[in-house]
Amino acid sequence: MRLVTFEDDGERAVGALDGSEIVHLSSSLHMSNDMVDVIAGWSMESVSRAMEEGLRVPLSGTRLLAPIQMRSNVLAVGRNYRDHAKEFSDSGFDASEEEMIPKSPVIFSKAATSVIGPDDPIVLANDPTGTTDYEGEMAVVIGRRAKKVSRDEALSYVFGWTIVNDVTARDLQKRHVQWFVGKSPDTFCPMGPCITTRDELPNIRSSWIRTRVNGELRQEAPISALIFDVESLIVTLSEVLTLQPGDVIATGTGLGVGIGFDPPRYLASDDVVEITIDGIGTLRNSVE
Amino acid sequence: MRLVTFEDDGERAVGALDGSEIVHLSSSLHMSNDMVDVIAGWSMESVSRAMEEGLRVPLSGTRLLAPIQMRSNVLAVGRNYRDHAKEFSDSGFDASEEEMIPKSPVIFSKAATSVIGPDDPIVLANDPTGTTDYEGEMAVVIGRRAKKVSRDEALSYVFGWTIVNDVTARDLQKRHVQWFVGKSPDTFCPMGPCITTRDELPNIRSSWIRTRVNGELRQEAPISALIFDVESLIVTLSEVLTLQPGDVIATGTGLGVGIGFDPPRYLASDDVVEITIDGIGTLRNSVE
Repeated sequence: MRLVTFEDDGERAVGALDGSEIVHLSSSLHMSNDMVDVIAGWSMESVSRAMEEGLRVPLSGTRLLAPIQMRSNVLAVGRNYRDHAKEFSDSGFDASEEEMIPKSPVIFSKAATSVIGPDDPIVLANDPTGTTDYEGEMAVVIGRRAKKVSRDEALSYVFGWTIVNDVTARDLQKRHVQWFVGKSPDTFCPMGPCITTRDELPNIRSSWIRTRVNGELRQEAPISALIFDVESLIVTLSEVLTLQPGDVIATGTGLGVGIGFDPPRYLASDDVVEITIDGIGTLRNSVE
Repeated sequence: MRLVTFEDDGERAVGALDGSEIVHLSSSLHMSNDMVDVIAGWSMESVSRAMEEGLRVPLSGTRLLAPIQMRSNVLAVGRNYRDHAKEFSDSGFDASEEEMIPKSPVIFSKAATSVIGPDDPIVLANDPTGTTDYEGEMAVVIGRRAKKVSRDEALSYVFGWTIVNDVTARDLQKRHVQWFVGKSPDTFCPMGPCITTRDELPNIRSSWIRTRVNGELRQEAPISALIFDVESLIVTLSEVLTLQPGDVIATGTGLGVGIGFDPPRYLASDDVVEITIDGIGTLRNSVE
C-alpha cells in the first residue's frame, strides 16, 4: 500500500495510491484526515475493502501534501554512509578526524515546522547564509509505541518508508555547533511523495536511493550501505525514549552532497531536486 | 498571572494560581484543557473575569502536570552561561578549547516525550549509562507565531516564563556527538510548576535561578548572566524558522552541574532536585 495525504477541495485527506488514482480513505472509511491517526488505528482489512469500494480521485492535478502532519520533530541521522562521512570530513566541516566514522549514531532533530510536501518549493530566503544543500534520505515511519525494543523485533515497529530531503544550511549547521538551527529553516524538510507500507516493501535494504539536481545524478547508494541500519536506530532510540506512531527517522545521506564538491555546489533558484527510492517513488521539489 | 495544567477528576485542565487555590479556567471559561490552545487564544479580559467568578479547587493535594502539552520538541540552549561553559569544558567533555564560549547560540532539542510535570519522578532507568545530571534552566514560552522578528519586538512574542530541568545522560550526550539522544530519555524534561505571564514578570533579567539537590545549593545565577539573552534567541531562531504558540525554549544552565565536580556528582535514587526562580516558583522532582 502506498499512502498519501492530499488536498481535496481545500481540505486535507488521507488516501491510497492505485495506479493513476487516489482512493479517498478519509471519505470512504470515515477515517481521520490525519495520517498519524490512520497509522495508530491501522486496519489492513478495512483499508483493503476501501480499495475495492472507495471513492477515487485522479492523482494527476491533485496537490499532494507531506504524507504526515508531524506531531514532533523529524529525527535524523548524520554521517550514516561511510563515503559521505568521508566527503563531509574532507570538506573541512569537522576539525576532528577521529569523529569521521561515528561509533554511535549521530542523531539530531529537524523542526516539525520545516516539513513541506512534494508540491511545495524549498525557499532559499530562509537561509541567510546562502549555503543551502540537499541530502536525499530514506526515512522510517514508526507504526506503534516503541520502548526498549530488541533488534529482533525492531522492524515490527516500522509502519512504512518514505523519502526525506534533509535540506541543510551548511554555514548555520557549523556556526551553531549543534545542528538543529542549520537543519530547521522553514521548507527545509521536503517529505513524500507517499508512505509505502512495510508489507509492500519488506526488504528496504535491497532498494537504492538516487538524488538528481536538474536531472544530473548526484547521489546514488544502496540502502544496505547504512552504517547504522533501521533496526539499530530503533534499538538505540527506544532504549531511552518512547517512539510514537507517526514518528519519522531520516536515516542519513550518501556521497554526493553539494558541500562535497570543490567549490561547493549549493542549491540555487529554479533548481529541481529529485530523490528516488525503488518501491517508494520520487520526491521532487523546486527551489525558489 | 501564574497558569498551571492540573489533573481534575482524572481529566486534564488549565487553571490560574490564586494563593492556595487554582481557578479552574477550563470549566469557568469553556476554555480548552490544552494550554497551547489557551495561549493561542489568550484573552486577559475573560481570564480576569474568571479570576473573580470562576470555580476554585485547592492547590494542595491537586496533581500538577507539565504546564504545556508539547506539540513539538523542547528547544534548549547549551553553554549559555560563561562559568558553566568553562566548567563543562574543564570536565573534559569537549576536545576543543576554542569552542568553550560559543560565538552563536548552541541550540538543540529534547523529545516532547521526555516532558514530565512537577509531581512526576525523574526515572534513572532510562539512562543505561548511569550518568544522569541536572541542569536548572529558565524557559521562555512563545505566545504567537514568530518569523524574522527584530530584537526590539522580540519580547512581545513571549507569553511567559517557566522552569525546565534539562536532565541529561552525560555519557549518551558525548557518545552520540549531537545531543538529542542524551537529552531526550523519557522523564528527562521536568517542566513547571507554572507559567508566569510576561505582564506579571516583565523583567526576567532581574530574577535569579537556584538549583538544590537534597537541599544543598548547587547552582545560583542571575538570569542577566545569559550569554545569549531571550531577545537574541528569538531573533536567531525566527530568522530561519517559524516559532509557534506554546513552543518552549530552555535558555541554558549555570555553573554547578554534576559533571562539573571531580568526581562527578550524578543523580541517584531518592535524590530530590529543586529549581527556584523568583517570580515563577519551585520545580521539585524526586529521582527514582
